[in-house]
Parts: sequence; structure tokens; C-alpha cells
Amino acid sequence: MFQAHDTLVVKTHGRGLVLCTREVAAFVERVGATCGLLVVHIQHTSASLLVQENADPDVAGDLERFFARLVPDGDPLFRHDAEGPDDMPAHVRAALTQTQLVLPVSNGQLALGTWQGLYVYEHRHSGHRRSLWLHYLGD
Amino acid sequence: MFQAHDTLVVKTHGRGLVLCTREVAAFVERVGATCGLLVVHIQHTSASLLVQENADPDVAGDLERFFARLVPDGDPLFRHDAEGPDDMPAHVRAALTQTQLVLPVSNGQLALGTWQGLYVYEHRHSGHRRSLWLHYLGD
Amino acid sequence: MFQAHDTLVVKTHGRGLVLCTREVAAFVERVGATCGLLVVHIQHTSASLLVQENADPDVAGDLERFFARLVPDGDPLFRHDAEGPDDMPAHVRAALTQTQLVLPVSNGQLALGTWQGLYVYEHRHSGHRRSLWLHYLGD
Repeated sequence: MFQAHDTLVVKTHGRGLVLCTREVAAFVERVGATCGLLVVHIQHTSASLLVQENADPDVAGDLERFFARLVPDGDPLFRHDAEGPDDMPAHVRAALTQTQLVLPVSNGQLALGTWQGLYVYEHRHSGHRRSLWLHYLGD
Repeated sequence: MFQAHDTLVVKTHGRGLVLCTREVAAFVERVGATCGLLVVHIQHTSASLLVQENADPDVAGDLERFFARLVPDGDPLFRHDAEGPDDMPAHVRAALTQTQLVLPVSNGQLALGTWQGLYVYEHRHSGHRRSLWLHYLGD
Repeated sequence: MFQAHDTLVVKTHGRGLVLCTREVAAFVERVGATCGLLVVHIQHTSASLLVQENADPDVAGDLERFFARLVPDGDPLFRHDAEGPDDMPAHVRAALTQTQLVLPVSNGQLALGTWQGLYVYEHRHSGHRRSLWLHYLGD
């Protein structure tokens, strides 16, 4: 059995999806992973992870419009607003999506479907540097 | 350490949950898994995975009615409609549920609770053949 | 390779988040885990798991108010109400959050971000004893 881990920093530019399939696949290749499991864990609570459609850029926009309507900024329901009206909505959006992904690796490649991409979903209006913990376990 | 993987095709018949606990458990038994981790990854972005109540069939209907109201077909919010009014809602439903499950295996069995079943959640109105990647790692 | 598993019982006191980071970390320490993957699986369908902000107690209250509005108790949409008006909403909330978490362990510690805590999210109004299956695989 073989293990490897590293931190991948993804730069975001305000709300929305940032594709990171290539960077994650590069880690798999760099450590020489052949067959095993890759865990991706985002170390933040106001950004999250998603496996989503990677073909039509409208999908990311539609997804963002949906979440903006579902979890409105500045909702009087929310008390936690120390960092602004998008503070608590960011935590709710993170709760509704994923903090972790577990991706099978086979023949040295991520076992993703044809139309699947890995995304960091930034939920704050300002850009951030988001740390992803990558941990591989396998052969 | 021992690894095994396979593809499980689950046939869906339009929107709703399809129980697949038995088929996944059969893979665990077939490969002789005793103690380890099983990852189930669905290779699509308009269907997803859920661990849900497996006793009362009303739960599946209630869940579907809830998601149909939360993410309405043909919502003018959505631009991505190349495959119809249920195209983008399917991606949103997938974002709100799970693309992957990681199930502990102990004594050759999935460590599920008494009332837990594994489901493929089809989000399109038409039936599909959905590919699940099963990857076992353990003893 | 080394594996260990155990059941952690978390006592809840009605709806809301119960922090369990310390109890989960204690398992990691007790079994002598150094580097690997920890799966936490909740064996229920009316409670779930979340990685969330662990600093401001308002976050838990805001999250609960959001879910209470999104999935109203006693909604006439729901038929599954054998255990009361909070029965089906509990299943929907579980579907919208997580049944499983996979946490990297490095240097004997959970690779969580500074502000991340592990929570059991109780979705029923009454308190319960919730079973979490902890499964470690690694060195």
C-alpha cells in the first residue's frame, strides 16, 4: 500500500465554480498513483466541492442563480453576519453541497464520467485562496 | 491489502429512486471483501446517489415531490435547457444530493443501519442506464 | 496496512447540531492511527453529518432556521408522517446534507481546517442516541 498527500491551493474570483479537474489529476500522476482512492477535502466552511457538468458554461451560471435565490444574501433569518451579508449564506451553501469528494483511481486516472468535472464552489463575493487537502491511498 | 472494482449498470424508469442495495452488496460478496471501504461513484451529472429510508415507499414519493417543488422544471432562471425543461433541474438536484458514497464493510457486509438503503436517484423524466463505479479497498 | 472500527454513540437533544470532533479525534488517537483515511457513517435516516463552522454559535441557529423554513414540518406535500409532522422533513434534511464523511488523517490528526468542526445534525424534535460507524484504514 502506498499513500501520498499534498495541499492544492485554488484561487477563486468571487462567487462561482472554479474547475480543478486538471490540477487534481496532475497530483495523481505526479505521485504515481495507479489504482486506489483519492480523497479531496476542502479546509473551509464558506466554499465547497462539487462534481458537475463540464461541457456547457451555462450550467455554472444557472447553478449560481439557483443558490442565490435559495439562500438570499442578507436574509433577516440570519444572525451570523460578522463578515457581511454573504457570510451565513456561504455556510448554508456549503452545507447543501460537499466538503469532501472520494474519487476512485484506476489505471492512473480518475474514474470520472465523460461529462464530469471537479469544481471548487466559492460562496463568498470576494476571491479567496482555498486549500484542498489531497490524500491518496492505494497502489 | 486487496482492491477490486467494477461497473454496475442501474436501469432507471424516469424520475425517482431506484433501490440498489442488493446489487452493491452482491459485488462485495462476489469479490470476497471482508473488512474495508467501498466507494460508489455515479458517473453522471443528472442522476445521483442517496442513502435513505428503505421501509415506507411513501418516502420516495415525498422526496420527489419536495425536489420537484424546490427545483421547478422549466424555471425561467435556467438557460441550460438543451435537453429539455428537466435538464438543468437534474444538475441542481445532483448538486444538492450525492455523487459518491463511501460505505464501510465489516464481516463481509455493508455497515448500513437497519432502515438504510442505497438508491440511485434519477432526475430526468426519461429512463436511463446509469453507470456506478464500485471500488473496494481493504482485506 | 492497518484497519480499526468502532461505533460512537452521540446523544442528541432535539433538533440541531451536536459537535463531535473531539470524540472522533479520540478514536483516531486511541487506535494509534498515523496516516490514512477515516470514514464516519451515520446509521440513521433522520439525522445526518456536517462539517461546519465551529467558532460562532449563531451559525448552528441560523442553519437550523434555514432548514426549518426550507422543509416545513407538517407540509401537506408529505404523506410519510407515521412518527409525526417532523418525520418526513427529517428524511429530506438528511438527503440535503451528508450521511458520510471521509476525513484524511495525517501525523495522527484529522486534517480539518482551523474553523471546521464535525457535527451530528439531529433532525427530529426529540432527542435520540445516534450511532456513528467509525472506520479507519491506513498506517
